[in-house]
Amino acid sequence: MNKQPIKAAIVGGTGYTGAELMRLLTLHPAVTLTAVTSRSQAGRAVSDTLPNLRGVTELAYSDYQGDTLAQCDVVFFATPHGTAMAAVPELLDKGVRVIDLGADFRLRDAAEWQHWYGTAHTCPHLLETVVYGLPEINRAAIRDAVLVANPGCYPTAVILALLPLLEERLVDVNGLIADAKSGVSGAGRKVTESLLYSEISGSFKAYGVSGHRHHPEIEQTLRQAAGGPVALTFVPHLTPMVRGLHATVYATLIAPGADIQACYQRRYADEPFVDVMPPGSHPETRSVGGSNYCRIAVHHPPGGDRLVVLSVIDNLVKGAAGQAVQNMNLMFGLEESAGLQQLAMLP
Amino acid sequence: MNKQPIKAAIVGGTGYTGAELMRLLTLHPAVTLTAVTSRSQAGRAVSDTLPNLRGVTELAYSDYQGDTLAQCDVVFFATPHGTAMAAVPELLDKGVRVIDLGADFRLRDAAEWQHWYGTAHTCPHLLETVVYGLPEINRAAIRDAVLVANPGCYPTAVILALLPLLEERLVDVNGLIADAKSGVSGAGRKVTESLLYSEISGSFKAYGVSGHRHHPEIEQTLRQAAGGPVALTFVPHLTPMVRGLHATVYATLIAPGADIQACYQRRYADEPFVDVMPPGSHPETRSVGGSNYCRIAVHHPPGGDRLVVLSVIDNLVKGAAGQAVQNMNLMFGLEESAGLQQLAMLP
Amino acid sequence: MNKQPIKAAIVGGTGYTGAELMRLLTLHPAVTLTAVTSRSQAGRAVSDTLPNLRGVTELAYSDYQGDTLAQCDVVFFATPHGTAMAAVPELLDKGVRVIDLGADFRLRDAAEWQHWYGTAHTCPHLLETVVYGLPEINRAAIRDAVLVANPGCYPTAVILALLPLLEERLVDVNGLIADAKSGVSGAGRKVTESLLYSEISGSFKAYGVSGHRHHPEIEQTLRQAAGGPVALTFVPHLTPMVRGLHATVYATLIAPGADIQACYQRRYADEPFVDVMPPGSHPETRSVGGSNYCRIAVHHPPGGDRLVVLSVIDNLVKGAAGQAVQNMNLMFGLEESAGLQQLAMLP
Amino acid sequence: MNKQPIKAAIVGGTGYTGAELMRLLTLHPAVTLTAVTSRSQAGRAVSDTLPNLRGVTELAYSDYQGDTLAQCDVVFFATPHGTAMAAVPELLDKGVRVIDLGADFRLRDAAEWQHWYGTAHTCPHLLETVVYGLPEINRAAIRDAVLVANPGCYPTAVILALLPLLEERLVDVNGLIADAKSGVSGAGRKVTESLLYSEISGSFKAYGVSGHRHHPEIEQTLRQAAGGPVALTFVPHLTPMVRGLHATVYATLIAPGADIQACYQRRYADEPFVDVMPPGSHPETRSVGGSNYCRIAVHHPPGGDRLVVLSVIDNLVKGAAGQAVQNMNLMFGLEESAGLQQLAMLP
Repeated sequence: MNKQPIKAAIVGGTGYTGAELMRLLTLHPAVTLTAVTSRSQAGRAVSDTLPNLRGVTELAYSDYQGDTLAQCDVVFFATPHGTAMAAVPELLDKGVRVIDLGADFRLRDAAEWQHWYGTAHTCPHLLETVVYGLPEINRAAIRDAVLVANPGCYPTAVILALLPLLEERLVDVNGLIADAKSGVSGAGRKVTESLLYSEISGSFKAYGVSGHRHHPEIEQTLRQAAGGPVALTFVPHLTPMVRGLHATVYATLIAPGADIQACYQRRYADEPFVDVMPPGSHPETRSVGGSNYCRIAVHHPPGGDRLVVLSVIDNLVKGAAGQAVQNMNLMFGLEESAGLQQLAMLP
Repeated sequence: MNKQPIKAAIVGGTGYTGAELMRLLTLHPAVTLTAVTSRSQAGRAVSDTLPNLRGVTELAYSDYQGDTLAQCDVVFFATPHGTAMAAVPELLDKGVRVIDLGADFRLRDAAEWQHWYGTAHTCPHLLETVVYGLPEINRAAIRDAVLVANPGCYPTAVILALLPLLEERLVDVNGLIADAKSGVSGAGRKVTESLLYSEISGSFKAYGVSGHRHHPEIEQTLRQAAGGPVALTFVPHLTPMVRGLHATVYATLIAPGADIQACYQRRYADEPFVDVMPPGSHPETRSVGGSNYCRIAVHHPPGGDRLVVLSVIDNLVKGAAGQAVQNMNLMFGLEESAGLQQLAMLP
Repeated sequence: MNKQPIKAAIVGGTGYTGAELMRLLTLHPAVTLTAVTSRSQAGRAVSDTLPNLRGVTELAYSDYQGDTLAQCDVVFFATPHGTAMAAVPELLDKGVRVIDLGADFRLRDAAEWQHWYGTAHTCPHLLETVVYGLPEINRAAIRDAVLVANPGCYPTAVILALLPLLEERLVDVNGLIADAKSGVSGAGRKVTESLLYSEISGSFKAYGVSGHRHHPEIEQTLRQAAGGPVALTFVPHLTPMVRGLHATVYATLIAPGADIQACYQRRYADEPFVDVMPPGSHPETRSVGGSNYCRIAVHHPPGGDRLVVLSVIDNLVKGAAGQAVQNMNLMFGLEESAGLQQLAMLP
Repeated sequence: MNKQPIKAAIVGGTGYTGAELMRLLTLHPAVTLTAVTSRSQAGRAVSDTLPNLRGVTELAYSDYQGDTLAQCDVVFFATPHGTAMAAVPELLDKGVRVIDLGADFRLRDAAEWQHWYGTAHTCPHLLETVVYGLPEINRAAIRDAVLVANPGCYPTAVILALLPLLEERLVDVNGLIADAKSGVSGAGRKVTESLLYSEISGSFKAYGVSGHRHHPEIEQTLRQAAGGPVALTFVPHLTPMVRGLHATVYATLIAPGADIQACYQRRYADEPFVDVMPPGSHPETRSVGGSNYCRIAVHHPPGGDRLVVLSVIDNLVKGAAGQAVQNMNLMFGLEESAGLQQLAMLP
């Protein structure tokens, strides 16, 4: 790497996606992390909060300072919804490129955004130019993007599971079901009773059956892939593990003779981070823990027209920080997998 | 309880369902446990293997002895498939009533049994008289039964989730999906690499997507409830927790105006162990841990005709040993909930 | 049980010890629970917060009302320190007996209490009459007590591990070490970042090495057993499990020929809830989960004069709510184990 | 890296230390992995067994073949005791350097080895030349070694915790206690009932109190550091987590005025993988998960002469495979931390 290192900053460095970005960017060969902001921790050494970084970074959290950030090449927002849209326009004006790991720019329709997030969108004009940061469908656009909306964790796993089927028009678009199971870190570092260790350990439950903010995000992209309306039932579940997301996706085959396995292998042949497993496989979430991979297996159980697609990611990596780094790599002309070579640990 | 205690024995007392039967029967006010057999542990005190029973039982494991068992009122089989069908005919001849927690008598069709279990059924004539021990559908028959086939764990949770909908013909019988998640104890005490702590902790995966022995068992009972053929897609998953089973069941509503919540409440109004939760609920598996309850919540997400039913049990209690005790209580004219008052622990 | 049921109330029914008391008292054959107070949940059904109690109690949380409580036979305080001492004097005046599961009355010395809890004790006169509710040392006094200080979880496990050695003067009182490991529920239902699932799962750490409030409580009772000063090093650790407490206690033998195993068996021969395991045993915390047992094993590793005592309890049962019920049973002349027959689940 | 890559092989690539070596060496910038042997998996792709390696290695397991291994620069043995000592002499004769992650060469005294491992040592002459692979004490010797005995996991954590105190003669060598807690992967991939998920999850226990093979290994090195005999009580515990090892070490201070914190900082100032934390710290095992760090905090609780040292490592990295790579780096003149930059994940 003889080029100048990319100057990057993170806004919101104390949540779990921010912490994961810290881990990845600290080791990235082409990036210099120049600032990490945190309202609550300003002034404190990052490694006080994140002891895994002791000895590898001297950074301290700082308050949000527009001037400092304006000197970066790229700023990552790892913030609750509402924060990024307040700050992004000014950064873009100053030529800084932005990757938002939050939800502010994921939905194209400002009204729908307001419906799900309960407040008006303050920069709807950006919804026209933002690029949805799923490299597997938008690689070219991401390269040129100034503002990238990094996908949610559920959308990443579910969309990658369904893309080949929808693009090739192999399944009924009206009967899609995504039964998704997430590790607890997907809920973020929210300090709330329901996320206490003693509330979650050894127990499993569904949540948000009547509606979840990732649902419109998933459907928006599936519509694009299918070239028309789709109807998806989406049920997320909370699983007693820290990381990992497993989507079990059901679809009804309408092209009886199709070679489904070949369809997936074809679609993802050149993707560095999508692994289509051999027929009959059952991917485990641990096989992608800490890595940027999505592993997919597709099944056609005997005696019916139902397909079952199994898709696993690490919700904090391919489902958040890793995908953000992948997007950054594309935006800055780096090797797409730079800084993303970590492998899952087994066991 | 002034009546004579019921003399009971357990065949196969070292597996997890046998251990759980030990726990329940040791505390049962109307039962005397007279023998627990185990080939591998014969002669050893039960409490050496099950230290939770130290101080409350003096029993030692014994070899299988037909004469001893013939003096019991009831014998429970907690054995791998194949064992019960070899021993049950003789016990029945001697007037002993039998509850089989294994799979030998769950399928009515001997050919189908052979297909799934890989060996011929040795007493197909018993398949005509055996009663499927799900009290919620067969209470009267269980009272008079001499041989009860105790349901599998997945079948219990899935069938109870779907019964009201099928009996009232409210859903399309051709598009049923059961996405089920089980704790690891559901796999039994099998000593195999894939069940090691380090292989399972912190990871989630599906298994048996191409076919699982509980599938025909579920369909058999659903057909009976629906009064005709049904088509079910069934996908089991292994969850990193010891106990608990969560079924997420999907069905397409064909009776648009129906009051689904009322339908469930009506159906289970008199059931001592089925708890229909208020609308909008998300049952947690821990809320039934160690208890014989099945908790169910039914959802109709907005904007579609898909119903989502959430059903949780403890796989070793309502899904095995507890349901066996419930069946025994019915067979011997006891209070149906005798010995089954334990409550789940929170946390 | 033909006697009148005991009227009991719980102050502070939303924490983990309160919840566990609810579970135990709901099933207690001689108790009627008449009130459960909670400032934050007043008016709400208890079973909304504790779904394990759905169907078995109709109680709703209420505000603290002195008049209602004054009509009880016994009131349990499951509250943070400071609450009980404000309310207890009035209840005692009205003839209500009190069991405090909090820390207000555990230390006999008001000055020491102030040192550790940071505020002055408001009713130091009660410290002279309160009985420390460890039945294994104070059974007779508990029977007559009007105010019982229920021991902390660490003190229960550590004291029971050391009692026989100290009472028989077999070890050096100056070199005691208690290395204790607790499940996370021991920290209560405190909503704090460090107790989130994602912070604790899969990790182990010590805490409070420089000082823990249970330390003076342990030493106070050890002094009494030893008949003089003792010096204890106490290090608590947080273990990634919900329940269970394991104390590994080290002491230096000064009576070389003593039969240590016999000493323990003798000391606890008549104790209903202390199980001295055979030589060479390693008790597991799960063997006491949900039960009121303390299991102890004592080792004398070859080649030295060091003894190692292993002691396990369920921190919420023998370490809190179960011991409180045991104390209540003694206070009201019931069978000491009434309502405490639950067995741990294996697995 | 312009030098020739180092040709390495692993004997025993299916256990957990072998798997971890695979993960580390696959990403190592200066190593080419040429063979991985496994009797049971020969012929099978490594990534079938270790799906985390899908896409990054094409290696298949092979049978042990002396000729192939003889062409390597270094061979790692990740095998049960007894295997390495049978094969190592021939490899050394052919000029191959060997790092044994097993126990064959850890004890200097062949008689003691036989006592603990139950069989005679077959190449006692090598015990004179083997270097104990703890870089923090033997760095220079490791550089020149042809045979390195990689330390056990408990020894690594305990020795690093005590070294500064013993070397500076600050504590009583006769009263050392190491209370150690290990994640389950420390027991290896042994397929045995006691290591099943359902046996371990949510429970904690001690084991091997009467004697553990790591005990003589620890004492051997402590003696060397202390310059004379030491007496250590060592109690290992099994913790319900996959990775991580926490040693809580107790020692009695005999140099009252010593600045203990400074002593540790001085001792480890130049160590790339030992992190002495600030006073008052409580290291968490997760802070070193997947990384080669050992984090240490030293406490002097008030009111006594007892020191408490807390030491954490990842048992499979600094406690096994990572330390082996660190040793290899030293042996081949590479940067000591090459291939070992991974950071722990939080959460």
